[in-house]
Amino acid sequence: MQGTRFLSKGGTLRLPLLPCLMVMFNKVYLVGVGLMNGSLAKDLKRCRLARVIVGVGRNSRRLGQARALGLIDAYQLLANADVSNADLIVLGVPVRQVSTVLALLKPSLRAPAIITDIGSTKRSVIQAAAEIFGELPPRLVPGHPIAGREASGFEHAQEHLFKDHKVILTPVEVTQAAAINSVKAMWHAVGAQVAEMSAARHDAILSATSHLPHLAAYTLVNCLGARPDAQDIFTYAAGGLTDFTRVASSDAAMWVDICLANKDQILASMAEFNHCLHNLRAAIERHDEDAIHSLFTHAKRTRDINLLKE
Amino acid sequence: MQGTRFLSKGGTLRLPLLPCLMVMFNKVYLVGVGLMNGSLAKDLKRCRLARVIVGVGRNSRRLGQARALGLIDAYQLLANADVSNADLIVLGVPVRQVSTVLALLKPSLRAPAIITDIGSTKRSVIQAAAEIFGELPPRLVPGHPIAGREASGFEHAQEHLFKDHKVILTPVEVTQAAAINSVKAMWHAVGAQVAEMSAARHDAILSATSHLPHLAAYTLVNCLGARPDAQDIFTYAAGGLTDFTRVASSDAAMWVDICLANKDQILASMAEFNHCLHNLRAAIERHDEDAIHSLFTHAKRTRDINLLKE
Repeated sequence: MQGTRFLSKGGTLRLPLLPCLMVMFNKVYLVGVGLMNGSLAKDLKRCRLARVIVGVGRNSRRLGQARALGLIDAYQLLANADVSNADLIVLGVPVRQVSTVLALLKPSLRAPAIITDIGSTKRSVIQAAAEIFGELPPRLVPGHPIAGREASGFEHAQEHLFKDHKVILTPVEVTQAAAINSVKAMWHAVGAQVAEMSAARHDAILSATSHLPHLAAYTLVNCLGARPDAQDIFTYAAGGLTDFTRVASSDAAMWVDICLANKDQILASMAEFNHCLHNLRAAIERHDEDAIHSLFTHAKRTRDINLLKE
Repeated sequence: MQGTRFLSKGGTLRLPLLPCLMVMFNKVYLVGVGLMNGSLAKDLKRCRLARVIVGVGRNSRRLGQARALGLIDAYQLLANADVSNADLIVLGVPVRQVSTVLALLKPSLRAPAIITDIGSTKRSVIQAAAEIFGELPPRLVPGHPIAGREASGFEHAQEHLFKDHKVILTPVEVTQAAAINSVKAMWHAVGAQVAEMSAARHDAILSATSHLPHLAAYTLVNCLGARPDAQDIFTYAAGGLTDFTRVASSDAAMWVDICLANKDQILASMAEFNHCLHNLRAAIERHDEDAIHSLFTHAKRTRDINLLKE
């Protein structure tokens, strides 16, 4: 009975989505096995998208644990990694380490391997690749799955982490369409929605939607923690504060990297935020009820239209 | 078998908590029947703490709906309210309306009635009462349950809203101990934890834990919404942004009132936040990796210790 549904009104044959269907890659190398690459590993296995998953990292003890958990099938230390038979390499390291990692992989890298990454800044990845390879590898597909949790480490990896989340790919002119399509197919297969845009546009958007809220959350926690009544502050914290500062439990080193790798856009977004905050402060100072009301009403309407999940 | 558990090791008789046990008030008047007073009404009924609940407000259609839903047993219009036989009056109106409301209730108010409120600022309530009554009524117990949702209106009222939440009472010197105890017993009965402190301390703490995050959230939404790429911004919003701005869906008029009623403390908290944000911006500008790392590490540690819920 379900079968008849595939034929839509117009008579076109509509096939059901089969997200987990076939081996896409023989050998996938995950460089950096943390929360994100660990979750990707789970989905690659669940969907049988890869025959063998090799973890690459700096800490053999941690890599051994990841293998014991079944996330990866084998592992290599980054310092003497051999990726010569890789079909796909996914870089899951803090963005400012991409350059070092590419330099270490370069000697064993062969032309057919597709390289992608999951970093939160994209111009920096392209720049790092250009520096290491002299020119941009045509099979490098910079990417950023907009998913994650404030927890870190493969212990927190989870299946379906990317389901219904956006993945932004930022290919450049020389990037091969076939490489883009492979990376796109992988993300589709694990349930994500894929968009393409320039690295510059990605970095501008993310500086506002992700980087700025993280910095504001870290800042608010420090600001409250420095008050003489800090203990009271946290004792009487409402749900709003807990939600607002959730991302301040994110990995510090990763966020230092993002700050420095997307410095210009982050400073621009911080300046805009500061300007808006100043306007509100000025309205409160002059007791300007209408101005405050208009700011809050506008914000509420904007959020209710664009971000309200019910 | 359960019964034997009441006798603890030391031999002391430990009675189980019986939160819902008896009629505490004959007639309770809820002035303003919104999310908070509506939720309180549900719990008062569920726990049989009040024989009759009377809703008082400005809109007879809305009050009729609340009665039809069974939240209240009867209603009166505020303009000609008669609270002469009230045991308890709970003010659930925006904080800057407390003065007007008290002036309207004053003619019919009798000495035995206990008055409390649920407003987010406490000095303003005390000041309003002093203005209207000439001196502070000994049975006025200013209060603030730190609970709520960004939704408003009695349609969103829910049972157990106050369970395990803090309620801060800010009695003054003339406040009768018996009145404090009655209000405290009511909040305990609906599952809340009650603390007492001065109104000034309350207003300072809440300006930081609640008011500042609300203002930052409203501001961030406006700031993002004003960008030329606003549509992209919201399309690619991550969970962090949704959480961060959740409170920006709160009622605008209520928050205008809070801003103006707690103006001095809010301006002080905004100035502190601005200072902290400036420090981070300066560290990013001068590419000071160590300073940024130290700020983020400190914030993460502070949040993980004080606000992490697992």
